[in-house]
Amino acid sequence: MTVSDKHVLLMDGPDSKGLIYHVTGVLFRHGLNIIHNDEYVSPSGQFFMRTEFESGNATFDSEALLHELRTTLPEGANQEAITFRLNPKRKKNIVVLVTKEHHCLGELLIRYAFDELDATILAVVSNYNLLQPLVGKFGIPFHYVSHEGKTREEHEQAILRTLAIYEPEYLVLAKYMRVLTPGFVNQFPNRIINIHHSFLPAFIGANPYRQAYERGVKIIGATAHFVNNDLDEGPIIAQDVKEVNHRQTAADMATEGKDVEKIVLSQALKLVFNDRVFISGNRAIVL
Amino acid sequence: MTVSDKHVLLMDGPDSKGLIYHVTGVLFRHGLNIIHNDEYVSPSGQFFMRTEFESGNATFDSEALLHELRTTLPEGANQEAITFRLNPKRKKNIVVLVTKEHHCLGELLIRYAFDELDATILAVVSNYNLLQPLVGKFGIPFHYVSHEGKTREEHEQAILRTLAIYEPEYLVLAKYMRVLTPGFVNQFPNRIINIHHSFLPAFIGANPYRQAYERGVKIIGATAHFVNNDLDEGPIIAQDVKEVNHRQTAADMATEGKDVEKIVLSQALKLVFNDRVFISGNRAIVL
Amino acid sequence: MTVSDKHVLLMDGPDSKGLIYHVTGVLFRHGLNIIHNDEYVSPSGQFFMRTEFESGNATFDSEALLHELRTTLPEGANQEAITFRLNPKRKKNIVVLVTKEHHCLGELLIRYAFDELDATILAVVSNYNLLQPLVGKFGIPFHYVSHEGKTREEHEQAILRTLAIYEPEYLVLAKYMRVLTPGFVNQFPNRIINIHHSFLPAFIGANPYRQAYERGVKIIGATAHFVNNDLDEGPIIAQDVKEVNHRQTAADMATEGKDVEKIVLSQALKLVFNDRVFISGNRAIVL
Amino acid sequence: MTVSDKHVLLMDGPDSKGLIYHVTGVLFRHGLNIIHNDEYVSPSGQFFMRTEFESGNATFDSEALLHELRTTLPEGANQEAITFRLNPKRKKNIVVLVTKEHHCLGELLIRYAFDELDATILAVVSNYNLLQPLVGKFGIPFHYVSHEGKTREEHEQAILRTLAIYEPEYLVLAKYMRVLTPGFVNQFPNRIINIHHSFLPAFIGANPYRQAYERGVKIIGATAHFVNNDLDEGPIIAQDVKEVNHRQTAADMATEGKDVEKIVLSQALKLVFNDRVFISGNRAIVL
Repeated sequence: MTVSDKHVLLMDGPDSKGLIYHVTGVLFRHGLNIIHNDEYVSPSGQFFMRTEFESGNATFDSEALLHELRTTLPEGANQEAITFRLNPKRKKNIVVLVTKEHHCLGELLIRYAFDELDATILAVVSNYNLLQPLVGKFGIPFHYVSHEGKTREEHEQAILRTLAIYEPEYLVLAKYMRVLTPGFVNQFPNRIINIHHSFLPAFIGANPYRQAYERGVKIIGATAHFVNNDLDEGPIIAQDVKEVNHRQTAADMATEGKDVEKIVLSQALKLVFNDRVFISGNRAIVL
Repeated sequence: MTVSDKHVLLMDGPDSKGLIYHVTGVLFRHGLNIIHNDEYVSPSGQFFMRTEFESGNATFDSEALLHELRTTLPEGANQEAITFRLNPKRKKNIVVLVTKEHHCLGELLIRYAFDELDATILAVVSNYNLLQPLVGKFGIPFHYVSHEGKTREEHEQAILRTLAIYEPEYLVLAKYMRVLTPGFVNQFPNRIINIHHSFLPAFIGANPYRQAYERGVKIIGATAHFVNNDLDEGPIIAQDVKEVNHRQTAADMATEGKDVEKIVLSQALKLVFNDRVFISGNRAIVL
Repeated sequence: MTVSDKHVLLMDGPDSKGLIYHVTGVLFRHGLNIIHNDEYVSPSGQFFMRTEFESGNATFDSEALLHELRTTLPEGANQEAITFRLNPKRKKNIVVLVTKEHHCLGELLIRYAFDELDATILAVVSNYNLLQPLVGKFGIPFHYVSHEGKTREEHEQAILRTLAIYEPEYLVLAKYMRVLTPGFVNQFPNRIINIHHSFLPAFIGANPYRQAYERGVKIIGATAHFVNNDLDEGPIIAQDVKEVNHRQTAADMATEGKDVEKIVLSQALKLVFNDRVFISGNRAIVL
Repeated sequence: MTVSDKHVLLMDGPDSKGLIYHVTGVLFRHGLNIIHNDEYVSPSGQFFMRTEFESGNATFDSEALLHELRTTLPEGANQEAITFRLNPKRKKNIVVLVTKEHHCLGELLIRYAFDELDATILAVVSNYNLLQPLVGKFGIPFHYVSHEGKTREEHEQAILRTLAIYEPEYLVLAKYMRVLTPGFVNQFPNRIINIHHSFLPAFIGANPYRQAYERGVKIIGATAHFVNNDLDEGPIIAQDVKEVNHRQTAADMATEGKDVEKIVLSQALKLVFNDRVFISGNRAIVL
């Protein structure tokens, strides 16, 4: 029995006739009021639906509701392949990883301080101690886990020990400038969000603004994406761009780009923390 | 009995519980396959839904379907206030009105020539004959209806006589630079689409680029909207903008702005001609 | 005799032949190296030039340089009407005025903390004490000057007494939500910068997001401008926009708009604090 | 002796002290009035200047002016490495190459028909005859040069024979979908302009919209660039982008992208045809 009033139901699986009718019917019969319903069918026939509803005076048992949704599917539906998830609307618990740059972290901290993040920042972890004073202003634990003198695996193990204290639901890489090993990433499947300082897939890897300058592009950008095992290759959640011109050096572009990076990261986090993002292969479906 | 395979069902009225369930259920039971369903509930509690479906092998009677949708609404629904419309997907018949500028008309003609307009241009009407040669290239009737020596009402009557030949579903004002009287507009309720060369509601009325230059704005724009009886005041369908700077004169802005105007108008027409736009007071709901 | 290495020379006045040649010649003969030169002639024939130069090993007397620039103008130049200003490149001293919203202030504080503002924030003044804790984190004086029980003039006098302590070069209205009287504004001619939460001149005055929602616009924006005696009417320094749709309430737009507001304000301040903005009537020329 | 009133002087070479002073001085002494002067020094110390001037009542000998500019450079200037070019403002002569898509060609034809292209379209060449009817409407020669049954070299030789008739200054690839060999490209150094249907360097090569769909990007774009010997690798002249979402198929993106492509190509051509573009390695400097 849940006491939260607003909930998000996420459904995905192979499309077949009557799926919207099925879900809206079950919610209707339970006296649950749909606030917003959005659905998408991919060209390959995968069905995704996000249904936000409020229970109002009605009470319901989440497990029983999910059971009914799963077991009364219309004829032709592939029950085995369909997934339902039911989340109460609430803040997510996160840990933020950073290196030396403050702009994305500062953005998150200010939003958090004024309750605009849809998340609780449990801690900040960094391989440098430069940003400790900033984090300290906001009364959030800061863990300095240097990579000096450690192998990549040793360093990641040290970070994992710190994360184990907090058990975050999501890791946010707010300009964390080290590549993570598959061993690390696999522990947080679809739960690590990174901001990359280019308009992916352009300028993968190091120094994208330097690359952008040398290529002479007229627009730069930033990309927030889930991290999987290929560098800068996970599903893209949000992107934005900004016009530049030949007068701007790589350093100027980096400065201008920071404004794009921090806003794109914040927008992506808002989508993820509100359960609006499905992952489908290497694509993010935002409903 | 319809033979077209794809259809759009439009529903709007006061929100109440179970409306999505109702519609998806009726279509499901008729063997009609929903391709896309989108709905919106306004803050004031108005419900809008656009359902695109295909009949496939199923046959159905439009009138009977509409009757069933209207008469089997769930308990609590305000049947009197709910509207259903059912359109087969097909091209709309339009007449384009212009004055002297060619850019929007040229855009529409090229799209029309390559079957990308979702509409049939029955004729072009103008109060000047400057654009006759352009229209002639595309084999479309051009009607030169001069306003010289006529009162506004006489001129509009002359235009109405021309329009009566074609009975267009929509009038497109592709830079038609004369204000229409309420008497004229009322004959085409929500069926006249205009492109205004500013980012409305900034710079209503004449010479918006001159106004923009004098105000020193850093961004100019264009607005496609339905025409109602207040000048430049009808529901906005689409807008877009473009950065400018102090170096650009009013004439430069006008030149640059044309690219925005023609694309915004085309995008708005695509939305309207695909039955994706609801009008709600002075707002356009695009589903 | 100045010891700073980089300088900005600003010149404006009626255009005549040879002005660029004159200035570049004087600087050349003094062994001063032009890093960047940009000039603009308005349609009405006003000439504006910004010349950034470095002195390197050369030493020069600012007053003597200005004297030479003024007195050796080419034939035909209107010496009386031409203004030269010579500024060493340095941070400006500012006071920030706020009311209740934190987003613009937070942005400025983070930039200031990391030396990215091109200005020194001497103090923050507010008619509420809500933002005192935030300002306190950054070790900057916060002055709570309530307007309660005061006439507008009494309140402004109280603010002026606080400002007198700091003698700021610029006042930044970072969502200061009270209209300033001409008496106040006149004390800081072209030295007050405001961020307005709309794409001016659309939605002047109160509740622009509410106005934007009701008008059904598809794009919202923000405008940074100098304050003169007409509400929301001073020269525009920077603007930016963001797409919205019918699903967003006025409150949603306000939330989304904050990201635009804070970035636009920061961009405008960067331009002003780097002596890149000329004011010409109601237009800002950005060189 | 030229009779044209407006001219563009283009200068580039290693930076040294007094170059602006030198050029403005020579023009001043010849009684030539600078309308607009813009200059740029690259981080590596390359100087670029574009000076637009009008001769008014003054008469001048282009060759003598260039000679004086070259031989009276200030001390320290590297005369050997500095290039001056002097062009009267006039329309460029071009040939347009296309394959099957009409949108960019249609845009150019409409602009040309209304004297807005800053160029004369001498002819259109295509490896298909699909667009012949469109070109015919505008009274421009259309050459159908099929690649069927020809090697790449034979096909290019056939095109070259056609181009030899017209001796164009620029070739515009308005969605010409065949890769050109170095042998062909080398005959038109920095004189071939292509529109690529992606935001380069993302999605080089074939089917960029398919690639964009599969990568799940949130923004698509188009790039106008000079063609050199590496596919999609020449200096970028102009780019623009458009937001997309997961609902759009690759085909939808292609449709939406066309609007971006044609406008970007037109903007790039305007810059090139007005002598505003310098090429510096793989970068385009736009003054």
